[in-house]
Amino acid sequence: MDKKEVLKKIAKRLRIHSLNMTYTAGSGHPTTCLSMAELAACLFFGEMRYNIHDPFDWANDEFVLSKGHAAPILWACYAEAGIISLESLKDLRNISSPLEGHPTPRMNWVKSATGSLGQGLSIGVGIAAAMKLAKSNRRVYVFMGDGECAEGSTWEASNSAAELGLNNLCAVVDINRLSQSGPTMHGHDINTYTRKFKAFGWEPIEIDGHNIDQILQALQKAKQSEKPVVILARTIKGKGVSFLEDKNGWHGKPLKGDDVDKALKEIGPMPDIDAKKYVNKPDKVAPPQFKKRFDFEKLNYGKDTATRRGYGNALVSLGRVNDAVVSIDGDVKNSTYAEDFFDTFPERSFQSYIAEQNMVGMGIGMAVKGYIPFMATFSAFLGRAHDQIRMAAYSMSNIKMAGSHAGVSIGEDGPSQMGLEDLAIFTPIPGCVVFYPCDAPSAESCVETMAQHDGMAYIRTTRPATPVLYKKGEKFPVGGSKVIKKSSQDKALIVAAGITVFEALKAYEELKSRGISIRIMDAFCIKPVDRVSLIKNAEEAGNKVVVVEDHYPSGGLGCAVSQALAGKADIIHLAIKSLPRSGKPEELLDKYGISAKHILKAVEKLN
Amino acid sequence: MDKKEVLKKIAKRLRIHSLNMTYTAGSGHPTTCLSMAELAACLFFGEMRYNIHDPFDWANDEFVLSKGHAAPILWACYAEAGIISLESLKDLRNISSPLEGHPTPRMNWVKSATGSLGQGLSIGVGIAAAMKLAKSNRRVYVFMGDGECAEGSTWEASNSAAELGLNNLCAVVDINRLSQSGPTMHGHDINTYTRKFKAFGWEPIEIDGHNIDQILQALQKAKQSEKPVVILARTIKGKGVSFLEDKNGWHGKPLKGDDVDKALKEIGPMPDIDAKKYVNKPDKVAPPQFKKRFDFEKLNYGKDTATRRGYGNALVSLGRVNDAVVSIDGDVKNSTYAEDFFDTFPERSFQSYIAEQNMVGMGIGMAVKGYIPFMATFSAFLGRAHDQIRMAAYSMSNIKMAGSHAGVSIGEDGPSQMGLEDLAIFTPIPGCVVFYPCDAPSAESCVETMAQHDGMAYIRTTRPATPVLYKKGEKFPVGGSKVIKKSSQDKALIVAAGITVFEALKAYEELKSRGISIRIMDAFCIKPVDRVSLIKNAEEAGNKVVVVEDHYPSGGLGCAVSQALAGKADIIHLAIKSLPRSGKPEELLDKYGISAKHILKAVEKLN
Repeated sequence: MDKKEVLKKIAKRLRIHSLNMTYTAGSGHPTTCLSMAELAACLFFGEMRYNIHDPFDWANDEFVLSKGHAAPILWACYAEAGIISLESLKDLRNISSPLEGHPTPRMNWVKSATGSLGQGLSIGVGIAAAMKLAKSNRRVYVFMGDGECAEGSTWEASNSAAELGLNNLCAVVDINRLSQSGPTMHGHDINTYTRKFKAFGWEPIEIDGHNIDQILQALQKAKQSEKPVVILARTIKGKGVSFLEDKNGWHGKPLKGDDVDKALKEIGPMPDIDAKKYVNKPDKVAPPQFKKRFDFEKLNYGKDTATRRGYGNALVSLGRVNDAVVSIDGDVKNSTYAEDFFDTFPERSFQSYIAEQNMVGMGIGMAVKGYIPFMATFSAFLGRAHDQIRMAAYSMSNIKMAGSHAGVSIGEDGPSQMGLEDLAIFTPIPGCVVFYPCDAPSAESCVETMAQHDGMAYIRTTRPATPVLYKKGEKFPVGGSKVIKKSSQDKALIVAAGITVFEALKAYEELKSRGISIRIMDAFCIKPVDRVSLIKNAEEAGNKVVVVEDHYPSGGLGCAVSQALAGKADIIHLAIKSLPRSGKPEELLDKYGISAKHILKAVEKLN
Repeated sequence: MDKKEVLKKIAKRLRIHSLNMTYTAGSGHPTTCLSMAELAACLFFGEMRYNIHDPFDWANDEFVLSKGHAAPILWACYAEAGIISLESLKDLRNISSPLEGHPTPRMNWVKSATGSLGQGLSIGVGIAAAMKLAKSNRRVYVFMGDGECAEGSTWEASNSAAELGLNNLCAVVDINRLSQSGPTMHGHDINTYTRKFKAFGWEPIEIDGHNIDQILQALQKAKQSEKPVVILARTIKGKGVSFLEDKNGWHGKPLKGDDVDKALKEIGPMPDIDAKKYVNKPDKVAPPQFKKRFDFEKLNYGKDTATRRGYGNALVSLGRVNDAVVSIDGDVKNSTYAEDFFDTFPERSFQSYIAEQNMVGMGIGMAVKGYIPFMATFSAFLGRAHDQIRMAAYSMSNIKMAGSHAGVSIGEDGPSQMGLEDLAIFTPIPGCVVFYPCDAPSAESCVETMAQHDGMAYIRTTRPATPVLYKKGEKFPVGGSKVIKKSSQDKALIVAAGITVFEALKAYEELKSRGISIRIMDAFCIKPVDRVSLIKNAEEAGNKVVVVEDHYPSGGLGCAVSQALAGKADIIHLAIKSLPRSGKPEELLDKYGISAKHILKAVEKLN
């Protein structure tokens, strides 16, 4: 049988699976699978090389299903390839099945969760960049929907791919004209897509997405390009079933009752072909060997130093003992101090420019290939990548993020530059650890801990220089805290972190001069918060607690402490409770109620 | 004096102000002001029409400084125009001055805060769309930096402007080649910008941004276009001061010491010209007259109805009594049920396609002109606009957002589609109110309340249909709650919202059959939470509290209740504590610990 016939038959099998799976599940997106059946068949059984026995084999080409709602056909491809059983397809969307409604790594060939549209291309950029860095000649295929081309993140990724010269990256856009609630902006005007991608530095190839010859030719041509290539495939949503074809109103709806029989009849009987035979087995490729230590040499700090500077220093030191560490910047490396890493390890440094969504998406992609990406920008701007960060959790991604210039303590630049809700981005995410060190040595140690932690981690750093409180090399573990002032006479426990630790220390000195002692806890690990120590120290301080943080009241330290101490302690929570403004840092700490003066007052109020 | 000479002199005055202001403040971005001096002079004293006595006059052209770090030159323009005193410029960045480091509406000619890059163009799209809707022939000018063209949001906005045919929108890009940490991706390759904007449906005009004639001609030409126009201006960062011109490393740095004298000497003496005389006064324009009621007729609900359906119904009813209400969709209107509004009021309905950043940015823009935009998408995808939402607070924007498909109760579609951190996006924001109704009548009433609330509001809706609990027209005020089960014998207070209200009711019935009574509070207003009622009802239930929510543990209801009841009550917090998966809604509620069964257990544990 010739290749074209084989692929036509496999496409038909994929169509039948997609209809049956969503029918059995009673939900899902069959029509979006039907439009891509030939494209999927050609990719999985004509083009890509992969070792069906090992999803993590460096010999594999990588695949990202950016249009995650087409999960059924992805599962069908893996079943046809012999990776999972055909039988398992009937469990689509069952609570016990790894074949979820949208792809997640619960199915181990999925390396990054998708389903929030427009994220796949950045992930592909990250994977492709990682392959280039590891000197691998494998390729990455990102399968996209046309609707998600409206997402800005798609264009951030396009920029980045072109700028990085990722000719090992091929995007395929399934232009089926119909989105969830109606036609897409450009419908079947393929030429507009061509103009856009071309303007963004890509090589576009227009094809009929149901024509096997054209698909195969385009995939061949893609390999010869110096640029990233996008295959713009004109397709019909619901292709193969006349009453679904090109019809609005069928998005995300499985066939029910007689409809499925009608549809299956129209498609015809299941072709008898063993698709497994047509998987391209790759030649052997040795995985890159990383030096991968985490215990780096810490620096000595004589004078006041900003925690962001501590972060930057630690990143360089970590990079020296760990080849897997890479750094991605959003054009603020001279502020986050990631620039030292850029200067020291230019080949492991990636500039995403002012495109935070792509910065994080790229990081997810690089983590797919075993790199440990550290991404940094102002904490205020990490929200730009909120959805990528959310999805990274479902990707079970080992990415590390740093947000500098936290809080009103940045001063004159004003509220747009103040991260005051960044902790609330990271604390909800299961498994994500969150650090907020107060001095340079603890910042360094937190970087070590977050690198060691297998999973997502966030570190919040401060703009102004702060005094050196801790000794070089002291440990700052996940879930830890430090009690830095303590006596048997303490009248209150002050729970502070970052810049407010020093306000608490000022309040301590002032109260001491009045003969009153307070206990101070540096809650450098916001999540998981040190519940045991909080309970013990609160109790020893008469269960009178002041939490003071340079953050809005919800989602940060106050929230964590209130939950840990529920029912146990009286708590006064000092936080930024109104919209701040430009001013000097010390003026702002005072105006918004988180300075030593306010801590003093809170202690008085509790006693 | 001819116009060109006038504008040259004004540009020089703006340069001198920018240098002096940032020198006096000791911080700020002078070089980014210097590159745009001619462009700003031409816009404010050659092109735009505005009534210096009224920033809200509908006769005004509107201006958005998307590159917000150029605030000093904006303040200088307003001073030269006679809107603020020249004297006030020396207060730049002072805590008592409205002239903040980046623009905020504390200065009343600023309608939307900027400083997080790439947001201005969407705001301009919203303003331009609002003007078209109000049949105004005024124009909008959005002033952008080249660096922010890397932000995907810029391209979302570009798409939107072209699709909406906003030929009253003119963007000016100050292409000065240098960004914060180094050169931009495209440097002075103006042609690449031209290709991109052209591909996105705009009319690009390339000019020398320091040539007054070219600037004025471009602004004239822009008015003749059928399309939105972008003026791509090649400029020199630091223009006018030889040791700053085109030099990397000067971003965000004021001149210090002798440098400022050297710079001022090179620019020459302050030209003696009264710029006020050159402001184009607009002809009178009548503002649009809105029917602006909020008390709409509610519907009767006989059977189980999803709260998202209640939202959709309410939006239509509100639209009938209030002409200022507009709806913006992110291509999911058939899921959020905003589609009914689209069908009923097509002229007040705007499709942003799958581009949530632009959806919210547009909303901020429309609110600038007095419209009340309701924007809806899946709660999971609102995080895409996290930074726009954050900035909307600093814009003091009257925007309303709805997030549907909250929590694991959506079921089979899986985690990527579940909003589990959406409350944590909105609860930190000062002034933002947050609703989470449990049935259709309360959803309707919450829409009324959020429309009436002057400021940001968020409503969270649920996918499955839920029983009807409340009477038509019952009030659901800001900061309110409802105690729906109560006796003098209550053994615990269950605080629930949305879908978990019904789990609490199931637990109530089960416990009742065992002779145990519990109190149930429907905390439909998550923020501000009803602290007074919480304290009272917790106390009456023995200070034993169970909070149960379909959200991650941080930033939602549990956080608010813990803070409200700190030191007063024992609290068990049931929330989604690990990464969820696909499954049936009831299976997931149970698996992740927020079903009736888990409430029962928690009550037992507390007693």
